[in-house]
Amino acid sequence: MPRFRLLIEYDGSSFHGWQIQPNQPTVQEALESALSTILRTDISVVGSGRTDTGVHARGQIAHFTTEGDADEPKLLRSLNGILPDAIAVLAVEQAPEDFHARYDARRRLYLYFVSSAPRALDRHRRWKLWPTPDFNCMNQAANELLGTHDFDSFCITQSETKNRVCTVERAIWLEDGRRNDWRFEIAADRFLHGMVRAIVGTLVEIGHGKRPVDDMTRIIAAQDRRCAGQAAPSHGLALERVEYPEPIFFQSKEAEPMMVSTQPIKN
Amino acid sequence: MPRFRLLIEYDGSSFHGWQIQPNQPTVQEALESALSTILRTDISVVGSGRTDTGVHARGQIAHFTTEGDADEPKLLRSLNGILPDAIAVLAVEQAPEDFHARYDARRRLYLYFVSSAPRALDRHRRWKLWPTPDFNCMNQAANELLGTHDFDSFCITQSETKNRVCTVERAIWLEDGRRNDWRFEIAADRFLHGMVRAIVGTLVEIGHGKRPVDDMTRIIAAQDRRCAGQAAPSHGLALERVEYPEPIFFQSKEAEPMMVSTQPIKN
Repeated sequence: MPRFRLLIEYDGSSFHGWQIQPNQPTVQEALESALSTILRTDISVVGSGRTDTGVHARGQIAHFTTEGDADEPKLLRSLNGILPDAIAVLAVEQAPEDFHARYDARRRLYLYFVSSAPRALDRHRRWKLWPTPDFNCMNQAANELLGTHDFDSFCITQSETKNRVCTVERAIWLEDGRRNDWRFEIAADRFLHGMVRAIVGTLVEIGHGKRPVDDMTRIIAAQDRRCAGQAAPSHGLALERVEYPEPIFFQSKEAEPMMVSTQPIKN
Repeated sequence: MPRFRLLIEYDGSSFHGWQIQPNQPTVQEALESALSTILRTDISVVGSGRTDTGVHARGQIAHFTTEGDADEPKLLRSLNGILPDAIAVLAVEQAPEDFHARYDARRRLYLYFVSSAPRALDRHRRWKLWPTPDFNCMNQAANELLGTHDFDSFCITQSETKNRVCTVERAIWLEDGRRNDWRFEIAADRFLHGMVRAIVGTLVEIGHGKRPVDDMTRIIAAQDRRCAGQAAPSHGLALERVEYPEPIFFQSKEAEPMMVSTQPIKN
């Protein structure tokens, strides 16, 4: 059966996360409902991964299969016509029949936005930090995340899969356009539940001098969530991009939603 | 009496514009109320100009006078502590006693944000255009705005001051970071009521081929609002910066909220 994939942006503040839950608005439910209406058959949507309540996405990837053919440009217009405003499908294309949005994903990039100054227009996208933390210290500590480690100390779900090993390929704080605005970029092959927010919260505690700069190595080694810092709030976090062995949405003008950095992601 | 000036950002969607109105939340009212509480005396705030309902600001300037002295850093913290989240005071400094936020302003820069692709996260800040207009045509037409003209055709208030002459020093569409996102930058010594939105709406009609590219000259000459296009929606518009004969907020890290363009504003 023909398989299609979607490039999706959403405002996490409008949803109880990606994954379908009874009696709660979720992104997955909204997409399945819209696709089922348009294609006149029950459609299941598989995402590259879950995002929690309040977490945004600019480059979520999902796939679905359908019996009939679908005219992609028409489907794209129809979807955006009936989806809630807080979800935008940026592109749709036919995929190989064995493409799997979750299992085939090789790398995910998350961005976490903060500001150490008052902000009105970006307040739903940035965590307000006060006082200004020491971003040099935070980058020194973030370096300790690079490589392959058991990230048990940054996982909030105790019942999740036993394998907590992730390979972090990028972890860096960068200035984000405006003075006093910064973003944290973190890329890994996989992320555990609550991992980015726990890492960001811990790094900010280091930046505020509440923990020594070399604490990160100790926390990773402890394999105990209680050793890490408090989770950063969800509204600062966004899933920016998911990468696969082959380039996807190659012909789409939206394939690269944003130049995230001049520095390449480490391989 | 000591005079102070404020650099202010606000989310226009939360207010019925800048100017105080009975029984409606306005930015001016929120500032006056917060300052009066902090300084324990009635404070009047004078802005560089009004913004309409729904219009945002990243660099609004206002002044007020108060009898006593004020500790600027402490005042800044107190203000942001009690103001609604949708207003952020970015900086406060003492000004010369004859400084006037409105009469002394020499140049205002407005930005208007559009997108020709579906957007979820920026949907409260960008006007969605469909189909994609021809931005080259729009820039050709925008060029006709440059210089000193009577802008009666772009003023919605018939009862406003009789002088409708403005000098437009910059009027250009630029790509805005992400593919399919554009912004219009327009700078002038003064703006009439509804002027930017009427100009943007007219330019988009030109970009959609509903009007000839050289229509702008004819519209300006007509001095009749009915000749111009429909006003663009307010949520895409933001007051970016107000300039004075002397640099202000020179010592503040927020003095230049953002590099708006690599092209200098014409003098």
